[in-house]
Order: sequence, then structure tokens, then C-alpha cells
Amino acid sequence: MSLLVVGSVAFDEVETPFGKCEKMLGGSASHFSISASFFTDVNVVAVVGGDFDQEELQKFSQRGIDTSDLERIPEGKTFRWGGKYDYDLNVCKTLYTDLNVFASFEPKLSARSKSARLVFLGNIQPDLQRMVREQVTEAQLVALDTMNLWIETARDSLIRTIQRVDILIINDAEARQLTANPNLIKAARTILSWGPKALIVKRGEYGAAMFTAESYFAIPAYPLESVFDPTGAGDTFAGGFMGYLSSQEDLDEAAMRRAMIFGSVMASFNVEEFGTSRTERLTHDEINERFQAFKTITHFDAIPFERAVQASK
Amino acid sequence: MSLLVVGSVAFDEVETPFGKCEKMLGGSASHFSISASFFTDVNVVAVVGGDFDQEELQKFSQRGIDTSDLERIPEGKTFRWGGKYDYDLNVCKTLYTDLNVFASFEPKLSARSKSARLVFLGNIQPDLQRMVREQVTEAQLVALDTMNLWIETARDSLIRTIQRVDILIINDAEARQLTANPNLIKAARTILSWGPKALIVKRGEYGAAMFTAESYFAIPAYPLESVFDPTGAGDTFAGGFMGYLSSQEDLDEAAMRRAMIFGSVMASFNVEEFGTSRTERLTHDEINERFQAFKTITHFDAIPFERAVQASK
Repeated sequence: MSLLVVGSVAFDEVETPFGKCEKMLGGSASHFSISASFFTDVNVVAVVGGDFDQEELQKFSQRGIDTSDLERIPEGKTFRWGGKYDYDLNVCKTLYTDLNVFASFEPKLSARSKSARLVFLGNIQPDLQRMVREQVTEAQLVALDTMNLWIETARDSLIRTIQRVDILIINDAEARQLTANPNLIKAARTILSWGPKALIVKRGEYGAAMFTAESYFAIPAYPLESVFDPTGAGDTFAGGFMGYLSSQEDLDEAAMRRAMIFGSVMASFNVEEFGTSRTERLTHDEINERFQAFKTITHFDAIPFERAVQASK
Repeated sequence: MSLLVVGSVAFDEVETPFGKCEKMLGGSASHFSISASFFTDVNVVAVVGGDFDQEELQKFSQRGIDTSDLERIPEGKTFRWGGKYDYDLNVCKTLYTDLNVFASFEPKLSARSKSARLVFLGNIQPDLQRMVREQVTEAQLVALDTMNLWIETARDSLIRTIQRVDILIINDAEARQLTANPNLIKAARTILSWGPKALIVKRGEYGAAMFTAESYFAIPAYPLESVFDPTGAGDTFAGGFMGYLSSQEDLDEAAMRRAMIFGSVMASFNVEEFGTSRTERLTHDEINERFQAFKTITHFDAIPFERAVQASK
């Protein structure tokens, strides 16, 4: 049981209509691994600078996350990102992106990382993702995230990377952009034709959907009255999804459907507070309780209609 | 078992990237009643002009819909609407709206219409909706639709009307606009505080959700590879929802959840062809088959997570 994530570890500065946080742990690998750590053993491959100290490292170690492959460049600075959300929280304006040590990131995998059973390739340059993909030869399942930047600037490389993975996890705007098709079902069909066994589409407040060649699964989002900070929700979803799968022997459709729920559960907690602060202190009871809530909010009796009285004709 | 609908009967001209139809049966009462007629007996209260001939009337009569309260003004013209859809079908540009006889529409209810068990107040001026509401004194359940025009131009009257109904059925943009709250859960709480027992929010390709004081229910849309003409999808949803409820003795939460599925099923068929042409020729087997498909696409096993192996700490 082991799960590897390759991605970014960053310091985020986030401003929302509800508050401001000047420096907190962020980045795809951070959100992913903290979320996944509730379900499985996680290894992180990423890079940080000399300004990344013991306090931040503890956020990983206290969740039992293996950081031996977290490279530290003492003379460099950690990736920093600043963003500001509008009142409706659907639009995020990036204030700045200081790549710092992340600009020359070359993922270095230890033997332990290379032998991971499940792998998540967080949103980094697609060439790097493919380089990692080629090293994890024993992986039973590899999932991939990406973003509009790579769709626009490195589309060919990205498609070659998608061809080599089992699951693509992106949002609906990205699925449409990637395939230049406004119909999500057709977009999914195109993406699956490239090679992946499954496409998972994140739809924010509308939930998530999973497409395979033979099946379709869709769930709503957990209803939240106060979304505080959406940053990292996608990676937290992926962490819950891959973390739960990593805990399962059979990686079949039924397990993937449950994993979608656990991913949604984790994401729903993530957005309740800044950064990883809500997710960090979750309990298994809280996670299972919200999992059950998903059953309640989606349940209906499958009773076919039979007309009791004929319409007058 | 009887269901009354008050709304518009129109001739629609619709252009989509896939084709054009210059004159077809449209309007909220048409889409609603044809959809509901698969589940229950329907009475239509609306108005048409002298240009509304036998051919159009047959679309109602062959579905067993009672049109004795469909007023005909021989010297007037039927309401006409023209619209054009963009490639992504989410944006509709209204080309023209010729109200014609609909401009001076005053719903006239026969004794039979007044005694309806269930009532749907289609999207018309809120004063008229309230006038009808006050005449259906025996109704067990009254549902209401509206649109952005009335939210902008007759908000106070609309809220007074909402206070008098059991269910409000609108889309998510309307729910946010009506309450000036971007968070749908908070918007729903506000609307329910005005009086309705339930709020149903239509989300187009993202499905639908139902809010009551104690519960939340959400479903995805049926996945469609080819949406041909979205006109009337909302009224067709409402028709399936109210039609199914009308066939049930208990109008409880469980019945309302099933009614949401039947509404979604009917709407998913409606958008496959122009106007009401797909819905008109549906069979009960097709309806029940798609109902079962909703169970399949939303099913997951409710197995709580138990960690098999402890993370190394």
C-alpha cells in the first residue's frame, strides 16, 4: 500500500472577501498528500527552498507523510503564489507567481518512490510528468492532473503524457479546452480514445463525474453554506480519491466510485478554511459521516412509473 | 388525480448550430402539459389566436390533455417567440417576442380547473399567477416558475406570489438573482423562509437540486452526447415532476425525489429534437428505462472507510 505524488510545494498568499492569509502551506503536492494521508501511506516528490522550515515540514510528518524525496535547496526560495477571489469565489485572480526553486524542478525518485503502487502526477510541465511516469514501472495505476497553461503551451507533450496514464483528473473547462468540444460527453469520448481508462471531471460546486468506456458516474458536491477558500480543492479531491483507492485491493469501478465520494468529502472540508488548516485536523469519524451524507443527499427509490388511471382520450 | 397548468402556448422559431425550425408548438404550458400527460390528467389554461388551428390542437388532444380552458381569440394572433442558440447551447439570444393575444391574457378557470389537486403556475406576470393561486382553493400542492424579467420588474409582487405557493421551481441564476446571494445554499434558505416548503433548482447540464427545511437532494443530468434544442427543457422538467407527483397519493419527500428524476428524464428527451417532437412520441418503457439509468449513474456502495494499515509516524 503506497502512493506517490509529484507536484508543487508552495507558500500561498490568498485573499478572499472573508479574510486574508499572507503565508501558508500550499501547492498541489501539499494539498494532495495531506488529504491522501487519511487513507494510505504517501511519498512526496517536490522541491522547496531554504525558507521552508521545520514548522512547515511538521505538517507533513504529523500526518505520517514520507518527505525523504522532498528536495531542499538551501540557497533557493520556495515557490510562492498569490491569488485573490471575487465575492462569488468562482473567479480567482492570480496576483503573482514566483516559481523560485520550482523553475528548475527535476523530480528525483528514490527506489522507494519508484516502486509505488499508485502514482499521482500533479500539475507540472507535461515533459516532467512523462519523465516520472517512465520511472514508475511497477505502478498499477497512474493518474494525471494538468491546467490551461499546458493545454495552451505544450498541448502535444501533454497528449503524449495523457496516452501513458490510466486516469486523467481535470475540471470541465479544461476537458472542453483540451478537446475543443463544448459537449462534455463528446470531450470525454475523445480523451478516452487517447488511452486513459477513466476521465474524472471536477465541476466545483456542481460536483464531479467519471467517464469510462462503458460507464458514467456523476455526483453532486456536498452543499456548503460557507465556502471560505477554494484554493487546493482540486488537489484535495485527487488526494482523497487516490488515497482511498490506494487502501483498496481491487481498483475496480465500484472502488473508483467510492473513491470519488471520498475525494468530494475531502474537498468539501478543504474549502471551509484557509489552506490545509481544516483538512489537517480531520478525524476519520468526520470523513465517514460526510461520506454517509452523500448517500443521503443522492438517494431515491428506483420505482418505475405505472399509470394508475388512464388519461381520458 | 388532476393537474392544472397556467402558462403560455406559443409558436416558436428556433435556430441552433444544428438546424432551424420556423414554426413549431412552444410555450411553457405546451411543454409542461405534454410532458405531464405521460403521468396524469392535465388541464391547460392559456390563450391562442385565430392562427392556432386543428393541427396544433391535436398535439394536446392526442396526449389526452384537456383544452376546454384554452381560450381562442379568432381575431388575434398566437404568441410568437424567436431565439437563436450559440454553439455551446448555453446562451440563447432572443430574436423577437411578439406577445400578441398573450399581452392581454387573463386566465379564466372553469369549475373543473379550479378543483385541480395539483397546480403549476407557469412563467407569466406574478400578479396573474397570484390571481390564479387564489382561485384554486382545493389544491394540495401549488408550484411556481418565474424568470429574470419578473425578478427585475415585479420583484415585490413575485415575492408575494412565492409566499403563497408550496414549491418554487427556478434555475440557479434566478435563485441567486432573486436573493442577491451568490451562495445557492444561503439563497435557498432565504427563499424557504418566505413560505415555500421546497425549492427546486434547475442547473441545466449539471442536473437539479431540491431544498427543504430539513433536507437536500441533488442529481446530475442525464449525459447527452447531442443536445439539439434546449428550448422548453425547464417546463418539460416541471411537467414530469408535477405529472409524476399528481399520480402519487403521498406527496412526501420520497415521492418528490422520484418526481425530480422523472422530471430530469423528460427534460433529457425534450432537448434531443426541436420543440415537443421527441417528447410527444415517448413510450412508458423509454421513460422507465431512462429512470433506471439515473439509478445506475448515481449508484455507489455506502461502505465507510476503515484504515487497514496504519501510516508510519
